[in-house]
Amino acid sequence: MLTGIAAPSNNPNAEFPRILPDGRLVFRVQAPLARMVQLVPMMGKPEYNGYNALGRQPYDMTRDQDGFWMVTTPPVGPGYYEYTFLIDGVVMMDLGSATTFSGNHETSHIEVPVREPTFYDVHNVPHGDVRQHWYNSTLTGKWRRALVYIPAEYDANPTRRYPVLYLQHGGTQNETSWVTGGKANFILDNLIAAGQALPMLVVMDNGSTFPPGLFRLPDPPPAGNPFERVMINEIIPMIDATYRTIPDQAHRAMAGLSMGAHQTLQITLAHLDVFSHIGVFSPAPTEFDVKTTYGGVLANAAEINQQVRLFWWGAGTAEPAIYQGVKYRLARLDEVGVKYVFREWPGLAHEWRLWRRALHDLAPRLFRG
Amino acid sequence: MLTGIAAPSNNPNAEFPRILPDGRLVFRVQAPLARMVQLVPMMGKPEYNGYNALGRQPYDMTRDQDGFWMVTTPPVGPGYYEYTFLIDGVVMMDLGSATTFSGNHETSHIEVPVREPTFYDVHNVPHGDVRQHWYNSTLTGKWRRALVYIPAEYDANPTRRYPVLYLQHGGTQNETSWVTGGKANFILDNLIAAGQALPMLVVMDNGSTFPPGLFRLPDPPPAGNPFERVMINEIIPMIDATYRTIPDQAHRAMAGLSMGAHQTLQITLAHLDVFSHIGVFSPAPTEFDVKTTYGGVLANAAEINQQVRLFWWGAGTAEPAIYQGVKYRLARLDEVGVKYVFREWPGLAHEWRLWRRALHDLAPRLFRG
Repeated sequence: MLTGIAAPSNNPNAEFPRILPDGRLVFRVQAPLARMVQLVPMMGKPEYNGYNALGRQPYDMTRDQDGFWMVTTPPVGPGYYEYTFLIDGVVMMDLGSATTFSGNHETSHIEVPVREPTFYDVHNVPHGDVRQHWYNSTLTGKWRRALVYIPAEYDANPTRRYPVLYLQHGGTQNETSWVTGGKANFILDNLIAAGQALPMLVVMDNGSTFPPGLFRLPDPPPAGNPFERVMINEIIPMIDATYRTIPDQAHRAMAGLSMGAHQTLQITLAHLDVFSHIGVFSPAPTEFDVKTTYGGVLANAAEINQQVRLFWWGAGTAEPAIYQGVKYRLARLDEVGVKYVFREWPGLAHEWRLWRRALHDLAPRLFRG
Repeated sequence: MLTGIAAPSNNPNAEFPRILPDGRLVFRVQAPLARMVQLVPMMGKPEYNGYNALGRQPYDMTRDQDGFWMVTTPPVGPGYYEYTFLIDGVVMMDLGSATTFSGNHETSHIEVPVREPTFYDVHNVPHGDVRQHWYNSTLTGKWRRALVYIPAEYDANPTRRYPVLYLQHGGTQNETSWVTGGKANFILDNLIAAGQALPMLVVMDNGSTFPPGLFRLPDPPPAGNPFERVMINEIIPMIDATYRTIPDQAHRAMAGLSMGAHQTLQITLAHLDVFSHIGVFSPAPTEFDVKTTYGGVLANAAEINQQVRLFWWGAGTAEPAIYQGVKYRLARLDEVGVKYVFREWPGLAHEWRLWRRALHDLAPRLFRG
């Protein structure tokens, strides 16, 4: 007799993982010959990512007589948790769960629902399409795919033009992660339907344009990295040519999480004539000198405050190194008088629960002037 | 020193699987503590699906001193092969490979390229978008997602209306499988750019509308199954209301593979006023009496031949039970004088290599009158 409910993120007919009435999670995997099986919460780099309610330590699973290994976690809050199984030292996905691209491969996740409707649920409001758009990239020598959120009203207003948010994923994720993990489209649907955000396009492209053999971009990416040129010379012109955008600085924003936050800082601050609104989610700590980093543009507060209409930063208190690194940099901005908005989330770490909230806080502030 | 090339379907920075110059494939997985590791070709139900060039038998993998297990297969032809690793009896995905939804979860695949450009490659032609479109389904009590291929010219011709192909996946696949495994969008892009197919919309929705607890639809699905009503009463009206379609029988086609082939037969033949073009790819063998199956409509050849402008069937010779089942049914159609088109592919089985070719053969024939 099974207790609780199968998670809403489960694959068809998968009874596990399950959510118990008190919020504990039950994971199960069949591995009759295994000697040791663990549930491993996925949190990226533990040294600065901290941990969420699922913790950072692997959970030992217990074998039953039929070769099923199970574990029940402590109660966790609502939201999204990535995990893998470690079976005799081999990382494997849970075939019962949906996946999000993370760790440079599809990774299992469980979505723990709340009783009350949330800002990221699918509500009965008009829904924008997410378009998979392929385009030829000369700079990378590849066909690339952008995912483009188009607001629900777009097709019904064939002469109206829209502002654009360029929204970047983190390291080892890809252009699909903001949809499968971040629910960016549903967040925008709900905000736009409620009149809380202006209708806008959201462009999600792949920021990992590193050369073959390099696992990820240096942190922070060097000036002139391939993605900067791809964004400025290929993605933006392609989007402006393909969709009905308002193709000017006042109506163009860029935001990103983790690696994408660094890319956002590096690209927007080098192209203040291109972007007016900036969103920085959970950037890793890096060297930061307001007089020299990013070409020193932040030292000229009057100029920055005039050109950047919104300089939004966000982090969770449970990603301590990142949180402290953000606070440090904001203190330096205070010293020179650069204006910004900062939001922090107690108890949240380097995870989609935070980044969903960050997008939900950022989007209503965009393109207001 | 690595030989050959990393497969184009590999995840970022994954060096395995590799393709050797003579067409052999090399798979590798690290599992230091495992006692037995196998490479398992994924072919669905072996009893009628047959086998492709990768075969149907698991390949034993050999351990090296560092705990890497490897195997080199015989040479295989170009195309697409799904596989898993079986490690001490546990099915697991290859973290180095891209995935397609199959088996009710994301499943690893390798794409083996050919030197010459193929009909399913990404070519330098105008590309249509694949739109993820969410809609509320009263019949299933769920929000559902359709993937809708929109031809490249759609946005530039704001008053033109288009015919629609409803294209269904097989059992344990989902609405994404025709894009990730089938490359339906690139096949249509190439055909439309060459003037070989008319510009059309292709709607890919989830045919697994079975009630909770039932693993898959009965084979064939009963009349009045949920998907029939979802297709007729929800999907088609939603598509006709959302996109610029030509909303009549002459400009509406349905096709599907395996389970989707049965759904296509069952739904189109029960709604001849709705569909004029029918595509049946690799249907499993079932009871078939031309006088009684599908309400007996096939017994009236004059009526069927007038209403169905194209009755297209396809199968591979290496899926023997399916192939023979199709030939049996076509012989019955011959006896009553129902017209059809039949294409067979020597050496191909129950696999995307076949279904890509089937779509490529079907699409140019659609909506020609």
